[in-house]
Amino acid sequence: MSPLPPASGKRVIVDLQELRRLTSDEHGGAQRVAWGPTWRKAREWFQGKLKDELNLSTSRDGAGNLWATLPGRSKKSLVIGSHLDSVPSGGWLDGALGVVAGLEVLRRHQAGGQPPVTLHLVDWADEEGARFGRSLAGSAASAGALDPDKELAHLVDRNGVKLPDALKENGVTLAGMKTAKATFDALSCQGYLELHIEQGPVLESLKKPTGVVLGTMGVERHQLRFQGQAAHSGAAPLHLRKDAFLAAAQFALACRDIAQKHSGRTPRSRVVATCGVVKVEPNFVTAVPGSAEISIDLRALDGKVLKRMLAEAQAASKRAAKEHQVTVAWSPLLHITPRPFDETLMGFAREAVKAATGTAPELPSGPLHDASEMAGVVPTAMIFAQSSPGISHTRIEDTPLPALDKSIRAFLFLAEKTVAHLAKA
Amino acid sequence: MSPLPPASGKRVIVDLQELRRLTSDEHGGAQRVAWGPTWRKAREWFQGKLKDELNLSTSRDGAGNLWATLPGRSKKSLVIGSHLDSVPSGGWLDGALGVVAGLEVLRRHQAGGQPPVTLHLVDWADEEGARFGRSLAGSAASAGALDPDKELAHLVDRNGVKLPDALKENGVTLAGMKTAKATFDALSCQGYLELHIEQGPVLESLKKPTGVVLGTMGVERHQLRFQGQAAHSGAAPLHLRKDAFLAAAQFALACRDIAQKHSGRTPRSRVVATCGVVKVEPNFVTAVPGSAEISIDLRALDGKVLKRMLAEAQAASKRAAKEHQVTVAWSPLLHITPRPFDETLMGFAREAVKAATGTAPELPSGPLHDASEMAGVVPTAMIFAQSSPGISHTRIEDTPLPALDKSIRAFLFLAEKTVAHLAKA
Repeated sequence: MSPLPPASGKRVIVDLQELRRLTSDEHGGAQRVAWGPTWRKAREWFQGKLKDELNLSTSRDGAGNLWATLPGRSKKSLVIGSHLDSVPSGGWLDGALGVVAGLEVLRRHQAGGQPPVTLHLVDWADEEGARFGRSLAGSAASAGALDPDKELAHLVDRNGVKLPDALKENGVTLAGMKTAKATFDALSCQGYLELHIEQGPVLESLKKPTGVVLGTMGVERHQLRFQGQAAHSGAAPLHLRKDAFLAAAQFALACRDIAQKHSGRTPRSRVVATCGVVKVEPNFVTAVPGSAEISIDLRALDGKVLKRMLAEAQAASKRAAKEHQVTVAWSPLLHITPRPFDETLMGFAREAVKAATGTAPELPSGPLHDASEMAGVVPTAMIFAQSSPGISHTRIEDTPLPALDKSIRAFLFLAEKTVAHLAKA
Repeated sequence: MSPLPPASGKRVIVDLQELRRLTSDEHGGAQRVAWGPTWRKAREWFQGKLKDELNLSTSRDGAGNLWATLPGRSKKSLVIGSHLDSVPSGGWLDGALGVVAGLEVLRRHQAGGQPPVTLHLVDWADEEGARFGRSLAGSAASAGALDPDKELAHLVDRNGVKLPDALKENGVTLAGMKTAKATFDALSCQGYLELHIEQGPVLESLKKPTGVVLGTMGVERHQLRFQGQAAHSGAAPLHLRKDAFLAAAQFALACRDIAQKHSGRTPRSRVVATCGVVKVEPNFVTAVPGSAEISIDLRALDGKVLKRMLAEAQAASKRAAKEHQVTVAWSPLLHITPRPFDETLMGFAREAVKAATGTAPELPSGPLHDASEMAGVVPTAMIFAQSSPGISHTRIEDTPLPALDKSIRAFLFLAEKTVAHLAKA
């Protein structure tokens, strides 16, 4: 094997800019919504790159995931992936960065002669779930964590199109999706790597271009309904009120306190709590709210901590209800198990980020990624590129070019180290 | 003058039941929305009663208020009134009680021979403002507290009908409304009395059938906008958040504390604070709220207390904004001056309620009434009938019959005492 060419983000950035021109609207927002025409255009472009520059053809598994393979001396393989699909008017780098950086991994390793292990590059289908609401569909199917009949068959988009019909336009069926796991299992996959934009403000606030992801946080998401009694704002004295909103307000502040209490000093012990949905009724200026719905979204990397947070939030809701003479009912919305990443691969990620930038900040990921599904079945690691501004699912989400270049270089180092590790193992 | 016949609520209740049958829907909810056909039907019924039983004709002033006059030995007059109009599907007694009890006052004083002072009975037009949003239009016009061009000309109902067009159907014009004050001034009115259902739970909670109203509370109503930054519920660590909802929640709880602090032990010193409207954006389960709108409605009978509550609420909003790293902006919605009632007439009301029930509980009114407008121009007193359940603007609002009878008797006593007082003055 000849030595690999120097690691550079240059070609990746040029390719990403080309993809952006091809698949954004006039305001620069990515329009690569899964199962639609612009997403198919992005995939055609990607397939063209693989064919023209690497002479690699692609194949699609039953879930619509798009695979390219650079055969190694061993069938033992490393999978690199992310997603070309985007939310409507999303950021140009969200997902695409990891796929195009993966292309560069293959390009670089092909230039170095046949790699010691096989490299698979995957563009996961419908990571965002932007159109039908179920995110991570493609990677979950490969990980055997999706039941298409239960989770997908009934979904309908805003225009009334059924998910199975949208799949059909793309040559995918619910039955076919169930075969994706067998396809994945046949890969002899020994590890999974992903580069992604952070989608949050942590690296920017630390002034760091890139960082090591510790895993994706577990999620406890619930909807609460506080039920009191609507009353006239003038006629009802304080002591006779059953103000459902005040109970919800007290609950929200208590959840903030619970999250602060459980947040340790290390990135690994960072936890969050968010009340995102708030609806009161009757919602008049002259009405004491008779009911208040509020959502709670608790996240932690440590499953035990998450469990304690949920128990404390439940107790806080009962205290708030009692104090304001209302009742409270909980409805579960989502439970996601924490996915800490592989310690060995994270060690390589730490070395790689340090080699590219001098330091290796660590952070958990609050949002889920395809890497969350992969972490359930193979050793997984992930690198984040700084997001600036640190908000996501908007066309203004960006990574400054120098930080982008460093992130890509760190990822190329990570892939190189992981390939070498798997070759020895 | 012969002695007045014994005071009884019997005929009033029979009349109210007849009006209910005539002007409710099949579920028993009053449908007497001002300026509409059912309201006109109620007024025709009322005019028929006056004509058939008292041989009194009615006249309408420029604002559409309907007047009947029982001439006394002196032109000096006492005005008794309330409103026949209702909200859609409202309570059978809300407004109608006071008008029909006023009819009984005239009936009783007519039976006693010519009264020493003139008695005017008025059915105020559009007290509720249910269709166009401006309440107390008729009584405000008579008090000279309404500018029809500024306050009414632009109003439109849900079906797109303009207020001036709805007035026209009833033979009323904006220009005509301005003449109502002169009509009122010509009455030599020395006092105003009103009986109304409480619209709140205070008398019911005290187990009292009827009570003396201390006045109507002043109102400071404002809309606040807390502006932060939306962020992903997983990606944004607590210390980097600008959560607008948490600031709004803290503000709401602070306002509750402010109201509790300023609430004294006496009914006169009761104050309230209500956050009735709450809207967050983006209002997703996975989004830290970037903005939160919240309304505050502060009420107190003492203008100085109300002013202090407002200042403290403003300070609390700034503290909440600072703590959560957001900004806050206030927009005024409504300012109403407190209207304490006349001490002399309230004294008669106290005696009258005590005579009818043995005790004379006192309470301020949070909701406004036509009496609020009258209190600005003439000595005014008001009696409340118990509401059970203590919620208003619903067809289930009611007064138990024994309490209704006692309330009417108390009101008849109050009118009798006030007539005697005005005759001597």
